[in-house]
Amino acid sequence: MSKSTNNLKAGSVVIGQSGGPTAVINQSLVGVVETLRGHDGIGPILGCHHAVEGIINDKFIELQNIPQDRLERVANSPGAALGSSRKKPDAKFCKQIFDRFAERDVRYFFYIGGNDSSDTCRIVNELAKKAGYDLCCFHVPKTIDNDLVHSDHTPGFGSAAKFVAQAFIGDNIDNRALPGIKIDVVMGRHAGFLTAASIMARQHEDDGPHLIYVPEATFNVEQFLGKVEACYTKHGRCLVAVSEGIHDSDGEPIVKQLAKLERDEHGNLQLSGTGALGDHLSQAVQKHLGPKARVRADTFGYMQRSFAGCTSVVDAQEARKVGRRAAKAALDGLTEGSISIIRTNSAHYKADYRITELSAVAGKTRTLDHRFILHDCDIDDRFKDYVAPLIGPLPIVEALRVGRG
Amino acid sequence: MSKSTNNLKAGSVVIGQSGGPTAVINQSLVGVVETLRGHDGIGPILGCHHAVEGIINDKFIELQNIPQDRLERVANSPGAALGSSRKKPDAKFCKQIFDRFAERDVRYFFYIGGNDSSDTCRIVNELAKKAGYDLCCFHVPKTIDNDLVHSDHTPGFGSAAKFVAQAFIGDNIDNRALPGIKIDVVMGRHAGFLTAASIMARQHEDDGPHLIYVPEATFNVEQFLGKVEACYTKHGRCLVAVSEGIHDSDGEPIVKQLAKLERDEHGNLQLSGTGALGDHLSQAVQKHLGPKARVRADTFGYMQRSFAGCTSVVDAQEARKVGRRAAKAALDGLTEGSISIIRTNSAHYKADYRITELSAVAGKTRTLDHRFILHDCDIDDRFKDYVAPLIGPLPIVEALRVGRG
Repeated sequence: MSKSTNNLKAGSVVIGQSGGPTAVINQSLVGVVETLRGHDGIGPILGCHHAVEGIINDKFIELQNIPQDRLERVANSPGAALGSSRKKPDAKFCKQIFDRFAERDVRYFFYIGGNDSSDTCRIVNELAKKAGYDLCCFHVPKTIDNDLVHSDHTPGFGSAAKFVAQAFIGDNIDNRALPGIKIDVVMGRHAGFLTAASIMARQHEDDGPHLIYVPEATFNVEQFLGKVEACYTKHGRCLVAVSEGIHDSDGEPIVKQLAKLERDEHGNLQLSGTGALGDHLSQAVQKHLGPKARVRADTFGYMQRSFAGCTSVVDAQEARKVGRRAAKAALDGLTEGSISIIRTNSAHYKADYRITELSAVAGKTRTLDHRFILHDCDIDDRFKDYVAPLIGPLPIVEALRVGRG
Repeated sequence: MSKSTNNLKAGSVVIGQSGGPTAVINQSLVGVVETLRGHDGIGPILGCHHAVEGIINDKFIELQNIPQDRLERVANSPGAALGSSRKKPDAKFCKQIFDRFAERDVRYFFYIGGNDSSDTCRIVNELAKKAGYDLCCFHVPKTIDNDLVHSDHTPGFGSAAKFVAQAFIGDNIDNRALPGIKIDVVMGRHAGFLTAASIMARQHEDDGPHLIYVPEATFNVEQFLGKVEACYTKHGRCLVAVSEGIHDSDGEPIVKQLAKLERDEHGNLQLSGTGALGDHLSQAVQKHLGPKARVRADTFGYMQRSFAGCTSVVDAQEARKVGRRAAKAALDGLTEGSISIIRTNSAHYKADYRITELSAVAGKTRTLDHRFILHDCDIDDRFKDYVAPLIGPLPIVEALRVGRG
């Protein structure tokens, strides 16, 4: 059954997924597809393989005829089902994009991604206008970093935060059982939201993480060693959450002091996929406290965005809704925009999905509000109120204590 | 209501948890407590805080009066609720243990742990006999390494294997979305069971892990680089599962070539809690393939044993049952033993729990059967039949392909 919409611009649709995948990015893909398909004049709906690279390489996947049950399986899978890329297009690249789009009469472009991808979407939109190519461009938000402006939070964050919370819940009682200093390195180059989510592991008195370091605060190695020692003296153990992006007062990443680092096309340092920062911090603590202290570090790595079977239900639903919302905006005749999530009720969590101008979101980075950061080494309890509804229910754990059973 | 058992030796009970915690070790603790409590003459039931160290430090937790609902919460929590230790007692230490035991009239000792802990249990048992101290000693098995002899598998393994499987399911599609070489380092010093469980991520054609390296085979860096390159050429990507304990033909750990390593009291190298091996392998691959290849490494670390909310249901049930079985053996009048899990039906998974002599299990290490190891770099599909029932249901994921939708 085809659906008729007044004044709807006819044409093909291209959808891409860009940047780091998340546990729910495919929900957004399916949200766009299921909302658009069946409308008169709309189609085919093409997924571009590995983001903008698939466009110029003419590698497309037809999506409009995939049965709904298969789409649901895709939606429930982590990882970018279309393949991803971190390619940032320039004017020449965009010219090739429009040539390919013209061949297939593409009039709708949906790009699911984070802030680099929103900037790609803005560039494509602006250069299409300049080139006189008639194209509607929508950015559909996703990023585990939760760092898009004009949004309460981003799809992908809730599931990654759930992983981080469950990891810290478990690691806290592991560290209680075999006491020592444990340092866990969490993803987050500029924004500490994910690291701050470790606070959800504090269920009982003296639960860790005892120290939480985010990139919004300056990291001082000497002060860090002092805090760890004080905590170790007090509790006999110390669990530390550290963002991969922690830096010194000059803005230099702590990890840069020790490792050769590569830069990707967006000028970002490689902070993930290496245990260097954790090992560096762990060695510094070991040297400071002496050989008797048990010091370990883990780097949570790509599992935070990819782990199968740890998805937040709210996050999955919202990722679906932002995809649908973007598609609906196109059906409503809008020509461009990014979808923002607005929290409309804090006491009983509720959210709304609105259209924001592409240029207002593109390439900008939101960071953790400073009211959540305590003494450069901890997170305020109010952050729990912010993050808990995005994560959903968490396992409650129980330890036993001497003298108390 | 107290239960009467003929000829039951009266006395107190001490239970300890030793070695690395698991997601289900508290199930075994609760299994012992709930089976023993209420029997005439048995009690108090004391948990020793941080294993044998709690005994000589007189740090005990009374367990017999904890309400069942609280016990259930403890059972469902990962980590050793009593606290753990890797202390290996010698004759002098055992003398102190028996002094403490005599003060509290302890006649039953249950020690939940892996092969080092079973050896501790054997030592305590033998030295008690020599000292003329009347004591029943039972070893209750637990280890994520799955390396106890005379057992089909060990409690704790199924949940850790589930974590590893879910991590690889997610990482496989993440690696498909952003192709490159990804190396994941899995726990396992001498036994490759946990690393082999990564094979459960192979759901579709060309799914990774494409290479699986276990410590039962010799690891040759040059051959490894050749295999990675061949896979990268064929699939455009390569996902590798590597045991932390991989070693060269002289038995030297690969990681030893680069990192200063500490040794714990059992003479074990520290292979966990550091990203060194992964980073070392990743640098070797990067050097071999050149700067254009995207090479990353993650070390799964302590999450494999501690992650909250990823427990195998079968594993949890079995961990409970081995605790109950050990307690029942004591109530039946046996004086020593270790609990073995025997698979009694492979087609429709079923298991039985039997008593094995302590000395037959103590300190011995089982490794992965060589029939499961293919060409030193892969695992036979038959391993899926072995491991799947211990893990339980896993998420099914779905990707999209060019030309196929």
